Parts: sequence; C-alpha cells; structure tokens
Amino acid sequence: MTVPAPTAVLLASCPDRKGIVAAVTRFIADRHGNVVDLEQHVARDEAVFFMRLEFELQGFAVPPEAFAEAFAPVARDFSMTWDLRPSARRQRMALFVTREAHCVYDILGRHQSGEWEVDIPLVVANNDALRPVAERFGIPFHVFPITAETKAAQEARELDLLRSNGVDFIVLARYMQIVSADFIGHFPNRIINIHHSFLPAFAGAKPYHAAHERGVKIIGATSHYVTAELDRGPILEQDVIRVSHKDSVGDMIRKGRDNEKVVLARAIRAHLDHRILVHGNRTVVFG
Amino acid sequence: MTVPAPTAVLLASCPDRKGIVAAVTRFIADRHGNVVDLEQHVARDEAVFFMRLEFELQGFAVPPEAFAEAFAPVARDFSMTWDLRPSARRQRMALFVTREAHCVYDILGRHQSGEWEVDIPLVVANNDALRPVAERFGIPFHVFPITAETKAAQEARELDLLRSNGVDFIVLARYMQIVSADFIGHFPNRIINIHHSFLPAFAGAKPYHAAHERGVKIIGATSHYVTAELDRGPILEQDVIRVSHKDSVGDMIRKGRDNEKVVLARAIRAHLDHRILVHGNRTVVFG
Amino acid sequence: MTVPAPTAVLLASCPDRKGIVAAVTRFIADRHGNVVDLEQHVARDEAVFFMRLEFELQGFAVPPEAFAEAFAPVARDFSMTWDLRPSARRQRMALFVTREAHCVYDILGRHQSGEWEVDIPLVVANNDALRPVAERFGIPFHVFPITAETKAAQEARELDLLRSNGVDFIVLARYMQIVSADFIGHFPNRIINIHHSFLPAFAGAKPYHAAHERGVKIIGATSHYVTAELDRGPILEQDVIRVSHKDSVGDMIRKGRDNEKVVLARAIRAHLDHRILVHGNRTVVFG
Amino acid sequence: MTVPAPTAVLLASCPDRKGIVAAVTRFIADRHGNVVDLEQHVARDEAVFFMRLEFELQGFAVPPEAFAEAFAPVARDFSMTWDLRPSARRQRMALFVTREAHCVYDILGRHQSGEWEVDIPLVVANNDALRPVAERFGIPFHVFPITAETKAAQEARELDLLRSNGVDFIVLARYMQIVSADFIGHFPNRIINIHHSFLPAFAGAKPYHAAHERGVKIIGATSHYVTAELDRGPILEQDVIRVSHKDSVGDMIRKGRDNEKVVLARAIRAHLDHRILVHGNRTVVFG
Repeated sequence: MTVPAPTAVLLASCPDRKGIVAAVTRFIADRHGNVVDLEQHVARDEAVFFMRLEFELQGFAVPPEAFAEAFAPVARDFSMTWDLRPSARRQRMALFVTREAHCVYDILGRHQSGEWEVDIPLVVANNDALRPVAERFGIPFHVFPITAETKAAQEARELDLLRSNGVDFIVLARYMQIVSADFIGHFPNRIINIHHSFLPAFAGAKPYHAAHERGVKIIGATSHYVTAELDRGPILEQDVIRVSHKDSVGDMIRKGRDNEKVVLARAIRAHLDHRILVHGNRTVVFG
Repeated sequence: MTVPAPTAVLLASCPDRKGIVAAVTRFIADRHGNVVDLEQHVARDEAVFFMRLEFELQGFAVPPEAFAEAFAPVARDFSMTWDLRPSARRQRMALFVTREAHCVYDILGRHQSGEWEVDIPLVVANNDALRPVAERFGIPFHVFPITAETKAAQEARELDLLRSNGVDFIVLARYMQIVSADFIGHFPNRIINIHHSFLPAFAGAKPYHAAHERGVKIIGATSHYVTAELDRGPILEQDVIRVSHKDSVGDMIRKGRDNEKVVLARAIRAHLDHRILVHGNRTVVFG
Repeated sequence: MTVPAPTAVLLASCPDRKGIVAAVTRFIADRHGNVVDLEQHVARDEAVFFMRLEFELQGFAVPPEAFAEAFAPVARDFSMTWDLRPSARRQRMALFVTREAHCVYDILGRHQSGEWEVDIPLVVANNDALRPVAERFGIPFHVFPITAETKAAQEARELDLLRSNGVDFIVLARYMQIVSADFIGHFPNRIINIHHSFLPAFAGAKPYHAAHERGVKIIGATSHYVTAELDRGPILEQDVIRVSHKDSVGDMIRKGRDNEKVVLARAIRAHLDHRILVHGNRTVVFG
Repeated sequence: MTVPAPTAVLLASCPDRKGIVAAVTRFIADRHGNVVDLEQHVARDEAVFFMRLEFELQGFAVPPEAFAEAFAPVARDFSMTWDLRPSARRQRMALFVTREAHCVYDILGRHQSGEWEVDIPLVVANNDALRPVAERFGIPFHVFPITAETKAAQEARELDLLRSNGVDFIVLARYMQIVSADFIGHFPNRIINIHHSFLPAFAGAKPYHAAHERGVKIIGATSHYVTAELDRGPILEQDVIRVSHKDSVGDMIRKGRDNEKVVLARAIRAHLDHRILVHGNRTVVFG
C-alpha cells in the first residue's frame, strides 16, 4: 500500500453569492495546489454557502502556517468562516465510559486494526467497571467518580488530564453522566455522544424501555455533538433497525447495541475526516 | 393460477398458562381441520398469550356459523378473547382523502392490479381536489366539507354512507382532518392512518418541516390505528429513509411520499390478512 | 410556490489534472453565472475527473446557443467531454410495457401528480394487456407485436413513432422483450431498464424463482441503462428488501414489485435531473 | 437479572399433513411441559412441515435422556426428523482466522461482554498474524500452516484438537483457506462462513474488487453453512449497505467490514438459539 500524498481540508461557510467557488479554487490553483475533492452546498432557505475542499499540499506554494495570511483577502471578500486541517496531523481522541462495553470494544478494535488515523491516549470513566477492557488494549484508564458535590472539581481535573494528553476531541461511548456546560465549552463541537434512540424521539433515560412501551416497529441510535441542552445537539448520524412485538426490552437493548456501534463509528470517522460543518443546531456532513 | 383453498384465521389472546396451543390445535384436528399456519407469542412481562392460527375449512366438521358454540368450552377454559375470520369473506375498505394524491394513486393502482382481496366502494373527501383521481379509477367520490359547526352532522352522514356501503374498515390516506372520538368508536381498530414521521417523533402538523429544523438524518412514516388521542394509536408499521443536509423540506416531502406509500400499503395488507392483534396500545403483527 | 429560477447543468469529464474546477468556475463567474451546485469526483484509480455544475442562467452573459463556442477553449485545454442541459427544456419520455402493471401505475401516478418535469407522449407495448391502464391516464397506447421475423421492421416503426413524438429517452417498465443493438444505438444511455434482481445475481429470466431456489434472505431490483449485452449495462440504482423462508415465489414477486417501483422511479429522477455520467460500464450518479 | 427457567428446543420437519402441531403440543402438554414459543412453517410447494417448539423443562415429566423413547411414537407417526436441544447445555465454538481482524475482534468482544451463551476454547489460524488478538482476550491460539501437500495431515490434526476441546461448531471468521469435503463431513451444518458479497453474486475471491468493477450501488455480506461446493452452502443471513461512485475498492472493503461483522454475528446467534433448520440447500430461520 502506498502512503497517500498529504492533503489539507478547507472547511468554509459564508453568505451565498456569485463567484465563491471560482474565487477559492482560483486561489488554490494559482498557488499550484491540486483540488482532489470539492463539495459545496447552498442552504437556499437561508442563502448560506458551505464548502469542503481537499487539495494536495505537494507543490502548494503556501506553507500551512502562512495560509491564514495568504487566504485572508478571499475570506474577507466573502465574509467567510473557515478552517484548514492538514491530513498529516494525527488527531487524539479520549473515550469516556461507564458500564456498557460494546462501543468501547468496537472503538478499540477499530483503533487496533488501524481503521482510523487516530491516537487514543486515555479512557476516562466514572467507575471501575470497564478497567479490564481498557487494560486489555493497553490504554491508560482513569477513574473520576462524580457526585453533585464533586462534579466541578472532578471535571477540572479531567480537563487538566485531557489538556496534558493533547486531546483534540472526546467520544462519550455510552457515558452515563451529564457533562456540565462549562466542560462542554472547552470542547465546542468536539464532544461526540451516542444516544440509543432515533432522536428527537425518546430523549433522556431508558429509551429502549420507552420504545417498547410505545410499541414502535423500529428502534434507532443517534450520534450528535454534545451541547448544554441534553440530547439536543447537532446530529451527525442516525440509523435504525427493525423490531417486532417479539422483542422484549432486553432484545431491543441487545439488538440496539449493534446499531449504536455502527452509528457512533460512522460519526467518529466523519469527524476525523473533517467532513462536518455545524450551522446553527444542524450539521452539514459532506459525503 | 389455482384458487387457494378456503381457510379461516383464528386470532386469540388470553392469560398465559400451560396447554393453550395443545388445546386449540386439538380442537381443530379433532374436527378434521388442517392447520396451515400457526404463530404464537407470549409477552412474558405481562404473561399474555397471543395466537394466530390459520386452518383449511375444507373437510372441517364445524360450519363457520356454529364455530362460536363449538369453541366456547375451550375459550372459557382459558379466558380467551378470540375472533374467527374466514378468508372467503372479501373485505370492503373506504378511503378518506384531502389533497395529497400519492397514497390514493398507490392504493387504487394496487387495487386495480388485483394485489389485494378487497373492494373499495367509495372515496370520502373533505374537498374536491382529488375527484379526478377517484373518477379515473371509477370509484364513487363523496365530498363532506367539515367545519367545527358542521362536524357532528357531517360525520353522522358519513357513517350512514359507510354503513349503507357495508364498509369494514377505513384508510385515512393523508386525510387532513381530525376524526371525532365518537366516529372512531364506530370503527375500533378499523381506521388506519398514515403519519409522515417516525412516531413518536414529530407528531402533529408539518412533521417534515420539524424534521428539517431538527436536522435529522432519517425521516420516517408510521401507520397506526386511529384512537381518540392524535397520533398516539397502536402502531402497525414504520419505516424510514435516509436524508442529508442537501435535502430541503421540499425534498423531504417528495422522498417521504415513497416511504408513506409503502408503509401504508404494508399496514393495509397486514390488516386484510388478519395478522394484527391489538393489546393495550401496542400491536402484535404476526409475520 | 415560486417557480425556481432557470438553471443549466454542465456535465463534464476529462483526464484529471490541476486547475480544472478553477478554470470552469472562473469561466462561469466571469460571465456572471451563479453556481448553485457543484459536485466533482476524481476516480483515482484511473485519474479521471467528473463534474456536475449547475448555474443560474439569469444574468449569464452567454446564451445557450453560443455556449459551445465560448466554452471551447476551456474544454480543449483539458480534453474535456461535456454536455450542457438547460433546466427549462422539458424532457419527453416513452414507456415500453408488456403485462406487469405496477411500474406503469407508479410512473403515471407520479406524472399525473406533477412529481416530475416530464412529458409522456406515448406508451409502447408488445400486446394489448395494459391498454386500459394507459387509457385511464389518457396516454396514447401503441401496440407493436414482435416476432423474430417482424422484429427489425417493427423496431423501425417504433423508431419512427418515437422520433415523430420527439422522445428523449425510453423507460422499459418491465418490458419483456429484448431490444436490438441497432435500436439501442439510437438511444445510447437513454434507455432505462428495471431488472428484478440485485444484478449481477440472477440476470436473465425469472430472477425471483432463482432467488427462491437459492434460498437468499434479500431480494433486489436494479435499474440500468440498456446496452447490447443483456442485463449488463451501467447501473443507475439498486435496492433490496428482506425476505425469509416464509416467502413463496409469489410473495417475492409481490414484495419485489414495491422495490422495483421505487428503484426505477429514483433512476428516472436522476436521469431527469442530469445527475448521471456514464464512464465505461459504470455510472457516476451525483447526489 | 433473574436466570431464565431452563427450556428445551425441539426442531422438527416432516411431510405435511393434518394434525402435526396438535399431536406434538398434546405430547408436551400431557407431560406437563409449558410451550413458551412455537413457530411452524409449511413449504407449500414441497408440502414439507417445519417446526420449532420451545418448552419449559421445569415440571416436564420426561427427563432429556428419555425423550427420544417417549417421543418415538409421535415421530414415527409423522415420519418426523427431529432434534432436541436443552438450553442449559452451553455450546463450544472454535474460530478459524487468517489475517482480517475485524470479525475476530467483534466476536471476542461479544463473547467477553457476555452477549452469547457460548464458550470459545480456541482460535485456529493458518498463520501467526492474529495471535496478538487472541492473546489479548486470553484465548489459546493454534497455528496450522497449510499447503497442498500438508492439507490432509493438518486437517486431521485440527480435527483432533477440535475433538479434544469438545467443539460443537466452527466459525470461519474470514478464514482464507478452502476446507476439504472430508473435514466438512465432520461438522455438517456446523461450520459457519462469512462471505463478503451478496451471494450468489461475486462468489469466490476478491468480491469487493468485482463489485467495484461492475459498478454496483450496494455491496453485501452472506453468512452460510459451509458445504463442499465453494460459497454455495445454505444461507443463514445476508445484508447489504449502499455504496456510490465515490467509493474506491478500499472504501468498499472498509465499509463492508461493518456489514460482515453484523451479518456473521446474527448468523452465530441464530445457530446458538437453535433457530435454524436446513432443508435441501436452503434454511428455515425461525424468528
């Protein structure tokens, strides 16, 4: 297998008007960059323009650290919000867990198999239940038991630990603890949760019980960025599976796990690939 | 194609205990009935037993009109609620419509192609919009404009019309009008609605707008029996389709129509096949 | 509802190299065109570039009839194959049918409901079975019985009829007759077929019988452009549904119909939207 | 969590005729067994009857070891093939692997989380690649390199090892080696394979490459019992995922892995639950 040539991803959004794509691609081409992928989208109801542009860095005349200054005139011209992410920079992910092992096994298995370009420097838990799983994969496991009284102090300690480990984003792999707004503020659109229902249905606790009670014929899972409002953040990915009257709550929980794993893995991958733009409380997930 | 031998479907439920299947199948076998399909289910959390048993009438020693008396001892023994439905009896369905044509075209096309063993003696509407569709298929079209003031009187007239046409059940094919509890009482578990969301999410009006606003990645449709509580009746069938940030509300409406058609058609077929048992606010839909 | 502003779609492909998107979007922007949608794709294994670019014609400095000359230098520069399709031009579709009614009902229902911007000037059949369906929708119905001896002559008459009706493309809606290579040559990548299996499995006759015999747990449908090789043309769309041991061949045929309808309808829409580029025996279907 | 009461599963098939269900359920009820689940199916084209009946052993008058003799008259009467499997008996599964880690991680993760009632006494491989995975989970790992010359001898050693470990069935978790007909004969309908295509399409080697070449819009996975004919055994489970022109062969391989894992896991579970009856080259998979 050949190593792919290094690329950078430019994510940008701005008010829609004529000539945005032309101006940006001209900027890249004039500096000898080769666009290998471009996807744009106009939300017509709000006249907002979104773009994901990936270009090869080899031969590109502007070094990453000088990009902002070089690109500033174009950005200014279109009142553009943008972000540049070089593919060479390997991201660092922290896992937050409680008792459910399936997402943790799934994520660590993918990690170990080399499916993702990511480092997992640590697992954070609010109890000891999954320590053997983390240890099985050789990942440091840190326990921060949290009560109403200790929450602020413990989160501060967690933030220190995350910072000292250079963590870029957090995955709540069925972490059964509400994270404070203050904590979230340190990782805006960088905390990915998996909720075990097709939101907005069955937000909150025990969604499979509620689904069984309502007699639905499908159950779902939703991965979203965590915001201060519980289960209300921008949705990254959702999927469902069929159930029937034969399925007890226990069956739903078991079958649902497979769905949760896949939905969360797809969301993580989209995040790693820089394919997500958040706009208001919605996402643009480029294909 | 050979005409299938006439059968009867016995739908039954009762408190669970030993020997129910044995007693019922012995009753059938002793009278020379041949069981061609049997499915049973025990809801263990409530210890309730459900059964659908289909048997050939040819050679069966008990004529349909004498079944109740012959079966009474078994039913009494197990405190069984039951219903016998001979397959030879062709059912009669009324369509209620407003403006959306897709479900109507789909249902009338299936009817015309002979997909279902059903008669459609009439279409009921609250305005004239879909008269050309009904006429295209040669189905009588009746308009009952309804306002708050006229509702009771108009529903009474509708009931007369349904009765005089021998209607067994009603399909609300995107009928945009709330049906009164009194009206529903005349067709308990015999009014099938299609709602354009994966209930319980997005109950009420304009679900696709709400889905777009929330930024979901799947949209759904739900077919349920109509009860006095809006969009809260027992669910017969649900399915979803994927959407993305590219889909405007209009795209969701358009794509959703294909899903609504299929979900409603599956629910109608399950109802026609006597595969549904309602228990509380949930359904058992035999396979 | 407001009428959308007129746009044109540019479909283009060429050997991949730097600056293609920049050159094309610059060409559009310099002539005051507003790009409302752009999707490009590079098939890296073959280094081929594909693009679909939709731009508003209002204010665009080049009238459609002068586009080719104006765009020629760009196209030449990149050895580009391209096609421009103004959205204002309403396409004309011919339906070819035999005995199966479900796709015909589905297509004519969509047409009548205004779901597609398309005219259907005629239905062509090889027997009389579906005449009542066409007549129900007021579409002229032409019968061309075909035998080995009459095939060439009948296809010539069909071509005359299609030409005189200004037909742009043909949909074989379960048309049970092999179309000659000569006929296909008159409508390259403009004849859309629906085959009732997930190709390449179960090509040829009686795919549901073969699927039942093999004991598969899913059955599919495939829409493809017709080429001289039977069931081997470029695939536009596929989907599947689940089946089980309970499903007889007849059940598969019935359930499969719903899948066929939806798959064919999606393929037709993609064709109408100018979202398809054929490359070798594969398609790029822009999103 | 309460331990479920011990049950036994009776799997039976025979020529269809009147009174089978009645006779069998009467046999159970007369001996104080409580039927907790019964599903039967008649393949009408062949007039063959299939049944899965689960009943509680508590209070059942016949001990497992005496069942055969007690049941013999009923079985004889209907020319019935049957099998009784007590749920208390925990099964033992061997994993055969080569280089692909994803199914192995998935299976061992499920095992470790207690999702299945199964023991995994050993992993068999034809090379050392996945030794670290097995060791991570503490499962003995045995390597049997196989060449054309050593095949017979190595398979004999494998059989010895399987026998001495009391292995009930084998899962080929992307085991890239053809198993001999003789070997298969020791585990009839007890070797489960996962093939990375929707069979019968793309049997044999490199199915994702072939799928990419053909330009399909869905890719699949198939789990089947291994028979002497490669990729032709009775199918247990299949599923598909959507792909597009954007997906390279590498993308298909990656996305396909998630599908393979889930399909294989569902097949294993159905096998463990005694829900599968093989008939000819097809399966009845009870719900």
